[in-house]
Amino acid sequence: MAKVNVDLQRERDSCSFNITELTHWIDGGVQKTEERKKREEMALKEGIHLEPVPSVYLSHKEKYELAVKKACLLFKMIRKLQEEENAGMENYLAVLGGNLGAAILGDGNPLTLHYVMFIPTIMGQGTVEQQAYWIGRAFNLDIIGTYAQTELGHGTFVRGLETTATYDASTKEFVLNSPTLTAYKWWPGGLAHTANYCIVMAQLYTKGKCHGIHAFIVQLREEETHMPVRGIKVGEIGAKLGMNGTNNGFLGFDNVRIPRDHMLMKNSKVLEDGTYVNAPSSKLAYGTMMFVRVMLVNDMCKYMAKAVTIAVRYSAVRRQSQPKPDEPEPQIIDYLTQQHKLLVGIASVHAFRMSADWLWLMYNNVTAELDAGDMERLPELHALSCCLKAVSTDDAAQCVERCRLACGGHGYMLSSNLPLTYGLVTAACTYEGENTVMLLQTARYLVKAWQQAAAGNTLPPTVSYLGELRAGRRSPPWDNTIEGIVKGFHMVASGKIGICVAQIEKRQKNGMSYEDAWNMTSVQLASASEAHCRAFLLSIYYKDNEKQVATVSPELRIVLQQLCDLYIVYWALQRIGDLLRFTSISERDIEQLQNWYEDLLVKVRPNAVGLVDAFDIRDEILNSALGAYDGRAYERLMEEAMKSPLNAEPVNQSFHKYLKPLMQGKL
Amino acid sequence: MAKVNVDLQRERDSCSFNITELTHWIDGGVQKTEERKKREEMALKEGIHLEPVPSVYLSHKEKYELAVKKACLLFKMIRKLQEEENAGMENYLAVLGGNLGAAILGDGNPLTLHYVMFIPTIMGQGTVEQQAYWIGRAFNLDIIGTYAQTELGHGTFVRGLETTATYDASTKEFVLNSPTLTAYKWWPGGLAHTANYCIVMAQLYTKGKCHGIHAFIVQLREEETHMPVRGIKVGEIGAKLGMNGTNNGFLGFDNVRIPRDHMLMKNSKVLEDGTYVNAPSSKLAYGTMMFVRVMLVNDMCKYMAKAVTIAVRYSAVRRQSQPKPDEPEPQIIDYLTQQHKLLVGIASVHAFRMSADWLWLMYNNVTAELDAGDMERLPELHALSCCLKAVSTDDAAQCVERCRLACGGHGYMLSSNLPLTYGLVTAACTYEGENTVMLLQTARYLVKAWQQAAAGNTLPPTVSYLGELRAGRRSPPWDNTIEGIVKGFHMVASGKIGICVAQIEKRQKNGMSYEDAWNMTSVQLASASEAHCRAFLLSIYYKDNEKQVATVSPELRIVLQQLCDLYIVYWALQRIGDLLRFTSISERDIEQLQNWYEDLLVKVRPNAVGLVDAFDIRDEILNSALGAYDGRAYERLMEEAMKSPLNAEPVNQSFHKYLKPLMQGKL
Repeated sequence: MAKVNVDLQRERDSCSFNITELTHWIDGGVQKTEERKKREEMALKEGIHLEPVPSVYLSHKEKYELAVKKACLLFKMIRKLQEEENAGMENYLAVLGGNLGAAILGDGNPLTLHYVMFIPTIMGQGTVEQQAYWIGRAFNLDIIGTYAQTELGHGTFVRGLETTATYDASTKEFVLNSPTLTAYKWWPGGLAHTANYCIVMAQLYTKGKCHGIHAFIVQLREEETHMPVRGIKVGEIGAKLGMNGTNNGFLGFDNVRIPRDHMLMKNSKVLEDGTYVNAPSSKLAYGTMMFVRVMLVNDMCKYMAKAVTIAVRYSAVRRQSQPKPDEPEPQIIDYLTQQHKLLVGIASVHAFRMSADWLWLMYNNVTAELDAGDMERLPELHALSCCLKAVSTDDAAQCVERCRLACGGHGYMLSSNLPLTYGLVTAACTYEGENTVMLLQTARYLVKAWQQAAAGNTLPPTVSYLGELRAGRRSPPWDNTIEGIVKGFHMVASGKIGICVAQIEKRQKNGMSYEDAWNMTSVQLASASEAHCRAFLLSIYYKDNEKQVATVSPELRIVLQQLCDLYIVYWALQRIGDLLRFTSISERDIEQLQNWYEDLLVKVRPNAVGLVDAFDIRDEILNSALGAYDGRAYERLMEEAMKSPLNAEPVNQSFHKYLKPLMQGKL
Repeated sequence: MAKVNVDLQRERDSCSFNITELTHWIDGGVQKTEERKKREEMALKEGIHLEPVPSVYLSHKEKYELAVKKACLLFKMIRKLQEEENAGMENYLAVLGGNLGAAILGDGNPLTLHYVMFIPTIMGQGTVEQQAYWIGRAFNLDIIGTYAQTELGHGTFVRGLETTATYDASTKEFVLNSPTLTAYKWWPGGLAHTANYCIVMAQLYTKGKCHGIHAFIVQLREEETHMPVRGIKVGEIGAKLGMNGTNNGFLGFDNVRIPRDHMLMKNSKVLEDGTYVNAPSSKLAYGTMMFVRVMLVNDMCKYMAKAVTIAVRYSAVRRQSQPKPDEPEPQIIDYLTQQHKLLVGIASVHAFRMSADWLWLMYNNVTAELDAGDMERLPELHALSCCLKAVSTDDAAQCVERCRLACGGHGYMLSSNLPLTYGLVTAACTYEGENTVMLLQTARYLVKAWQQAAAGNTLPPTVSYLGELRAGRRSPPWDNTIEGIVKGFHMVASGKIGICVAQIEKRQKNGMSYEDAWNMTSVQLASASEAHCRAFLLSIYYKDNEKQVATVSPELRIVLQQLCDLYIVYWALQRIGDLLRFTSISERDIEQLQNWYEDLLVKVRPNAVGLVDAFDIRDEILNSALGAYDGRAYERLMEEAMKSPLNAEPVNQSFHKYLKPLMQGKL
């Protein structure tokens, strides 16, 4: 390895804790770390990360072709893992998600939905026979599938989808159609030129009646030739802000016929004669969606970890300005404003990781309860997963963008890998449920919970504070501690929800319909929902951190507690207006919080590089000229620049074609 | 023209004011509108906007070649304008900036710096002889220049630049060198493969002494062959988040010799024998920088106008969800949350436009005073231009991104033109002075002003409120009106600056150096600076809008006043925490403000489409599938998708190369 930048080396030498200990803690134990490293090693051996020419210089078409190559190599590796370890689904998802998959594939993967949506949907909604037939073929990669729900005209509002699947009892087939342009499927990853099979969500019609959205397996392309089958119009939707390797596609149907048993019938059924048999509960289909959202919160942690690793290392290497005439230019990480931009990002990774773990646990519990026929906690899980999806993607997008801007102009270079990371993160603000819609779904649950509490009922754990605070009503004295802040955030959430409920009621009394009153209050409802999620995040981080640091070394414990304090005080200062409205915090408290925050920045700063090193993101995966482990930021920027095809020739042809004629007045 | 979408047509039919009247008002009169339209017509006739294949599908190299072609056509047009109208510099800058230049060129222009920096610098810093020689050649486009200041290792901190220009009295030449890798020039637009001349900012050494940064004209490439001249290492810095047509370059010097008279010597001089003659004032060089910042604020208005035009029109066309069972899906602009995201964007365009006009006027006054030797208002102008640069670029970036996200998934398509617009806007957060550094420069001025006020001195107009509020001290009762809010923002700014000054003093008393105390307080200082700028923006918008609407029709006046109210109430709600801390606003006032805001959204909403139509951005310049005048958003999305080269073939070669072998287990 090349020599490490002296500033970066000094940071590491003076780190107050054992970095490897923290890595194990983050991964969930020594063994998990080793597993992860083994997989990374395997992927790198396959050469999945290699790009003959950096993909940023390629044309759109070439980018896709490179992405297919990389994805195929990754899938080959997953199949090898299957054979060696005979492990479960989660294992392959762990390879696809997390550091490895998302990172190593660069700008999206045209095959991801095969494992993330195609197979899980068949497992969740197919009959035993259907599973036996399809899952085998899919696991063996005989076929490659994707999942088509969103249409040109409809996204998050699933009921509005227009694609139809009409049962023809005479041939025992479903006939698929796209009755309008807006009915075209639009967005599914891998749909354009990659998958040959697809789960299609369509309005089911039988015996002249519509029974709503159901899932169908449809062959898109001939297995031998990959040519689209009759009646299928398929292609790509064009260039995007990011994820240009994902091969997002459109899909239209012109009387495409599929056998009756291509409808996934674990829940609802269509009998041979066309009789529709209803599902025991329409809520069962929530499973996959919530599973994906849990994964998403975890992905956000990985992206934030990448961004903050790059920005912190670069800020230790970069020196700028000269506040004191006789001293050298400081490392920019010594500026408090820079610490303000970056250090909370490190804490955010831990905060969201703990909430994701909590959500994962709850998801598994609720799924087990569902299998036993108990659906009581489903609405609570749904509400929590919605707002966490929104807040984690929003926060992650802002964190990544703040990291990019904190690297100044150089963060704008694609070789920093920050713009590409932003492209991947900001996409998540929209897919799997647009964030404002997500917040308002949670708000619906909160309003109901509030009304439950008003009626004197006990509330589920994640909203029980509504009942408690409603009961007390009078504001307790402000407690200027971490615990006090967390309590304050619950008071804020409770206060905001209370105001929303009152607003809606008032508007109804003034003659508005409930729907209009809801809409008029929706800006406040979204804000109340965010406040609820924020309170949840802070309290989980506070409680779980306290539990989890009990087992680590004293040196590490101090740092992890500082980080948690930093996060909570940071958010208190971000939400001073709310705290002033809904608690008895005073101006003096605020000034103390501000100083406390500034002190915490100074305390965490010496360990900043150690803290990001502990995320243990390999250079090949980080893929950043600014953030590499050796800190040779400037050398690497120049090395990356020299890879530009434009630099292969001293004079570009456009000089002769345009510039010279312009200068000679001959253009 | 194709048929207009019925929803969009209905919006236009029900608009309560005359859209053309508003267009004239925005442009500054009928004549200005006609001039603008004439120029647009001219550019379109040259075919500057045409792209045989949409540039988003091209490789990095092809994108550059297309950008050169477009830029040359634009320059040809500017030269034609020169001949026809014999107009001044500002005229060509107006063509380059604003709707036309930035928009029509797409992703950056490799020739912009020729007019925006190369020529103005020679005009500002060259002697009369130098001007006579160089400006003629440059105006005639015999040579193409750029401006190289930023280096790999130094950006906003200009004193830290490392490039040297050492005078050799024996040959009467300067010798330019890049002593380190970090001394390489890095970022200048057009530098890589386009310009053949360049203004280089370098540390001047003569007679063994360093005299700081000075400007030198350096030939980069042979005029005939375009080959780099001896000792010049030049190339491009690589792919970026955006502006990939700009051809940003690097530049290294290895003993490059230039004649003595290639140093720009209007101010400082080096005599033949190497004697250095000092400039009368080092502040004179501020001129160009501030001129560019004024232009920048204007650019931000144009980008916001584009983004909000796209998002508002699309939101009138898009229908989604079904809150009321028996009614059709609403246009998404009918959701209050959507109005919340978009309508303030329309108002922001007007708010920043008025501040930009104000700054432009002040710039011209101060420049005139400077020519008369009066430098008194220079620091005030500098302070104001710094914070306005930071706040306008930050706000614009957030506005554009909010508009993009408000378009859901389709905003992520490059064919929406929102991602590209964001790429251009967010770049401005860093170039021409990194925003945090800018805010802290203003903060330095504010702290000084505060101390002046404490010493009983009168303050310049833009900070006079500090003296007035300091004098009063006791908080006057809150006035829940627009005027009261504006006053409240001044109290916030004053309060924040006061706390900063106290904090710095306290820290100094506890033994910190002034520099360290400043750094420890810098998060608060940046926030105080933003508050100052925010107060300025609100009060200018409030006052100038009131003045300017006096001459418009009553129908339009109502709408413009609603828009101004909306903006100011919006910001009050965004800054409730500050208002609670520094004014006597009550919870009741806040709830009233919230309802007032919601009412204003509902009032402005019916005119939303009319308000963006009035920005009068032609389809060719808007370049958005979602935002075109006819509202055929879905049709255009599909049309754009079909232009993807990937869609030219039903089966991509990667199927045979990778996918099929993978599926057959032969990869």
